Amino acid sequence: MPRVTFFPENITVAVEEGSTISDAVAVAGLDVSQPCGEQGRCGRCLVLVRAGSVRRRSTFRLSERDVNAGYALACQTVLTGDAVIEIPPQEEIARRLVTEKTYTAEIPLDYDPVWMQNLKQIQVTIPPPTLDDNRDDLSRLENCLNQHQVKELTIPLMLLRTLNQRLRETNWKPWLVLYYDRNHPGSAVLIDIRLEQKPLCGLAIDIGTTTVSANLMDLDNGIILASAAEYNAQIARGEDIISRIIYATKYDGLSDLADRVRRTIRSLLDQIIKSSKISPEHICRVTIAGNPTMMHLFLQLPPGSIRLEPYIPTINHTPLYYAHELEIPVYPLAVVDSLPGAASYVGADISAGVHGSGLNTSDSLSLFIDVGTNGEIVLGNQDWLVTCACSAGPAFEGAGVVHGMRAARGAIEEVWIHGETLEPTYRVIGDSTPRGICGSGLISLLAEMFATGVVDRSGNISLDLDTPRTREGLHGPEYVVAFAEETDDGRDISITKVDIDNLIRAKAAIFAGFNVLVSSVGLELENIDRILIGGAFGNYINIEKAIQIGMMPDIPRKQFHFLGNTSLMGTSLALLSHQDREAISSIADKMTYIELSADNSFYEQFTAACFLPHTDINLFPTVMEIWNREKTE
Amino acid sequence: MPRVTFFPENITVAVEEGSTISDAVAVAGLDVSQPCGEQGRCGRCLVLVRAGSVRRRSTFRLSERDVNAGYALACQTVLTGDAVIEIPPQEEIARRLVTEKTYTAEIPLDYDPVWMQNLKQIQVTIPPPTLDDNRDDLSRLENCLNQHQVKELTIPLMLLRTLNQRLRETNWKPWLVLYYDRNHPGSAVLIDIRLEQKPLCGLAIDIGTTTVSANLMDLDNGIILASAAEYNAQIARGEDIISRIIYATKYDGLSDLADRVRRTIRSLLDQIIKSSKISPEHICRVTIAGNPTMMHLFLQLPPGSIRLEPYIPTINHTPLYYAHELEIPVYPLAVVDSLPGAASYVGADISAGVHGSGLNTSDSLSLFIDVGTNGEIVLGNQDWLVTCACSAGPAFEGAGVVHGMRAARGAIEEVWIHGETLEPTYRVIGDSTPRGICGSGLISLLAEMFATGVVDRSGNISLDLDTPRTREGLHGPEYVVAFAEETDDGRDISITKVDIDNLIRAKAAIFAGFNVLVSSVGLELENIDRILIGGAFGNYINIEKAIQIGMMPDIPRKQFHFLGNTSLMGTSLALLSHQDREAISSIADKMTYIELSADNSFYEQFTAACFLPHTDINLFPTVMEIWNREKTE
Repeated sequence: MPRVTFFPENITVAVEEGSTISDAVAVAGLDVSQPCGEQGRCGRCLVLVRAGSVRRRSTFRLSERDVNAGYALACQTVLTGDAVIEIPPQEEIARRLVTEKTYTAEIPLDYDPVWMQNLKQIQVTIPPPTLDDNRDDLSRLENCLNQHQVKELTIPLMLLRTLNQRLRETNWKPWLVLYYDRNHPGSAVLIDIRLEQKPLCGLAIDIGTTTVSANLMDLDNGIILASAAEYNAQIARGEDIISRIIYATKYDGLSDLADRVRRTIRSLLDQIIKSSKISPEHICRVTIAGNPTMMHLFLQLPPGSIRLEPYIPTINHTPLYYAHELEIPVYPLAVVDSLPGAASYVGADISAGVHGSGLNTSDSLSLFIDVGTNGEIVLGNQDWLVTCACSAGPAFEGAGVVHGMRAARGAIEEVWIHGETLEPTYRVIGDSTPRGICGSGLISLLAEMFATGVVDRSGNISLDLDTPRTREGLHGPEYVVAFAEETDDGRDISITKVDIDNLIRAKAAIFAGFNVLVSSVGLELENIDRILIGGAFGNYINIEKAIQIGMMPDIPRKQFHFLGNTSLMGTSLALLSHQDREAISSIADKMTYIELSADNSFYEQFTAACFLPHTDINLFPTVMEIWNREKTE
Repeated sequence: MPRVTFFPENITVAVEEGSTISDAVAVAGLDVSQPCGEQGRCGRCLVLVRAGSVRRRSTFRLSERDVNAGYALACQTVLTGDAVIEIPPQEEIARRLVTEKTYTAEIPLDYDPVWMQNLKQIQVTIPPPTLDDNRDDLSRLENCLNQHQVKELTIPLMLLRTLNQRLRETNWKPWLVLYYDRNHPGSAVLIDIRLEQKPLCGLAIDIGTTTVSANLMDLDNGIILASAAEYNAQIARGEDIISRIIYATKYDGLSDLADRVRRTIRSLLDQIIKSSKISPEHICRVTIAGNPTMMHLFLQLPPGSIRLEPYIPTINHTPLYYAHELEIPVYPLAVVDSLPGAASYVGADISAGVHGSGLNTSDSLSLFIDVGTNGEIVLGNQDWLVTCACSAGPAFEGAGVVHGMRAARGAIEEVWIHGETLEPTYRVIGDSTPRGICGSGLISLLAEMFATGVVDRSGNISLDLDTPRTREGLHGPEYVVAFAEETDDGRDISITKVDIDNLIRAKAAIFAGFNVLVSSVGLELENIDRILIGGAFGNYINIEKAIQIGMMPDIPRKQFHFLGNTSLMGTSLALLSHQDREAISSIADKMTYIELSADNSFYEQFTAACFLPHTDINLFPTVMEIWNREKTE
């Protein structure tokens, strides 16, 4: 009769021969999370075997190193003798089981505004005028700025109107905010004349088709002061790019859409101002990325020709404009830099994302995907880059799904379904009562429903199961993740057949895009060294589950890197440093675009991928393995 | 008994020995204008002695060449035998007696927009996009413009928003309006994208303290399409620069004054649009001159420090701004070029005026005066230029004088007073009924009143004379030039003692300015080769009368050149040609400014000049000559 001691509780129990660690945990009156119902599928019952004799029936999701270190799944490990076992804190396990965000390009620790930042705040000392030196105010200022490498100064009328007073009020020692134009050495734009030193902040904005997100940054030290994200108010006028373009070409549609994205930006700004306590007047620089259609709508440029062969945007490289021209309610003369894109459907968000991912500086072959409405994919390395856009739709951003929501407080971000009871367990962002399901939660939920037989390979929900969770709802068949009494607003949170169809189409588009892009350069998915995943669809993505639904290819897990919102990250870097800004420009210039709508193989690949995980199950050997094991049991 | 034949009437009469030609004209029943009452003062009775014997009692105002050619004053010429005499048309005489406008810088006959004009309208042909060449619209445009010497294009947001449509509507052959920046070769600003070729016009504006005037010009051929002038609506807030500056420093005063000059410009524009039938949308360039205070108020820059030692303006060299920024209701992206000035009280109007006068390209020593409210004077030649401003006040522009008016239709522009009856004769611009008296009319009137004893040397009106013309009026003593029945609005047109005091102070300031400026460089007035007179105060100025009142120095008449509104002329040249624009800049840089308020001798000179013609009558020998002759008679 093996004796087992559990730590950190230091409780020792004796159990029957052949018991699993899970059985021993129960005997000890302890608790290990087993949301999948001891099926060895969720990995939540992970324990550390410190000493003793055990036999692992399955090492699913454990690396060789994990096993050597003593990790074991409690439900899949049989006690063959005495043992000392440690139960790690649940939160630690939860984090370990998903692929955490691993920004390859963090805010540079070595941020040095002197060398990197184009916007500078300096105090100058101007000799006061005398009867003998009666040059005008502007000449005096220009002369003084010669000593600060400014040979040519642009001064907006608004500032010219304050110059006289500011010079005198500061006793000829004003603080100046200058934007140095790196394309024209010796040129600068005067952005502000200040009576005293004030915060110098910048706003990085990523305009997604579905989600708009922003970082407020301190340009003196590179710190993110506040962040916010919100659905793009344009969603009310169409969920994808094509419907937005069509709406924009109708009478007044363009100005309506431009108004809507401005409204969203204003709302983000309100949140950012509120949480950071920074005055909008101190935001003197704005850097913006988005796909070409989003950039066109933001700049209020007609996007019609983007949609029609030969798919021509008005701009890729947008000039600098002032915030007041673009109706961004920050400091009116804030310089707005719209980052450049590569092609009609691959924009600044992807240039910024590729830069943020570090794909273009590595010699390994990487596949980068921005999991957003557009589903842009980039393949390449330091020498070459090819790209396409696969129109995944907004499902992974929680839009177009009845109870979908952005990855914010209250979003269910991971789900486990008990294999026998079909009861779900979930984790909510912020550990609050659930309000909806975000992208990572939807991936997780769909994978669990598939693994437990709640949905079949075509995505149909089985209504014959012995559970109150599946039922015929208002929108057709559905599975209830959280009943009204558990939720924030007192309504059931469920996923419907229609939602599942949207999710399957979204993941199929991504998988088809991978295949077409890789084969366009004569390669196979197995040649890929790394898959870099960007997108703001969840705090953590469970790669295993993304593979189980056939969204990601079934290749070794360690090759996946989840990077979070790479577009906003790249945009933030461009806001901070002109070296990063230039890198993004050169990425935009370097990418070769492949138009999928002109590629028949895409549609074939898409159709084949519209199953769970795929029509060709042989493409997903580890998913097959689970099936086979379950069938065996 | 001499027999005299008059032509062109071919009438022969016999007259008593010792008769004057005037007597003979009367006998013949003919008419010769003698507004001064046969005193040989007005010169209007000029005749041509074709043959015969006469004796000239006076050749006043006739040159030697005139006398040799046979010209004689009818009232001052005695018939000593038979004669054949021609009476020239009255209008011809009137014109001959005044100094006509002699623009030294006319609109260049060799105007060549290709070489001179910075603003160009060109049609370009852009290769339409294909699937293989899918660059964005802006890149295509920029690439095409490389062939037109534009390596760097600035495109305002407003135009970027029309680019897509315009390129396609013109089948990729748009008409472009480009502003080539001469300071940055290879740079241009896109001003318009047009579906078809349209007129390309420019507006030259001269903002005077009292009068604002404008020319609308066709930039394709350099022709003036329309002109207009109007009082500056700022007059209601103070007549001179100092009172405007004081008003501007009060709450809201600056924006009020800026609004008022904009209102005046709008009104001029309305007139110009009406008479030329050119749409304001076709006005794509604006060039503006004015004294520094006027430029500051127009740009809405606080002018306070101009007035306070050390007299510093905010700007001399103003950057280019767009018309919409400055609220000029022409094409919103019209480039507004504010011409540069030299000092706090000598502005772009004088730089432009000096250029218009040609002073700076001649080796003769010239004295240039802009007879306006400021009374700026420039002395110099091709090698050096000194300048000052003598604050003459607005009297010579017809402002600050009860019945004063601008030199427009209905303005009395010359007056003669009969030496015995004291009855006036006058000439009205446009030969209409009189509405008021313009600057040249006021000079003429004051000189006549002085010559006929209506006013004394101190400017007091004598009320003891046997004439209904002098009387105690509402505003004190006055002389009535036109009674109600002759005038346009049915009210008497008169000149009051207060008006005369204003005129005397104005002319004294100018004369004092001449003296101080000339002596500042160690010269005397007699060293001056030419006096160039600018200002919009009348169509013609009678130099003789300007000397009689002591406004101009008593030097040979041929040295005077009346140039009209030189500021507007120089501004118009700068609008047409960048060579002229550069010349004006270098004049501004070259002028040395002398601050009269820091010069005690100015006040002494001014006080001495506050008499008719001057305290020191010896400075005016030809005026003394008339007096002596009159006393002798």
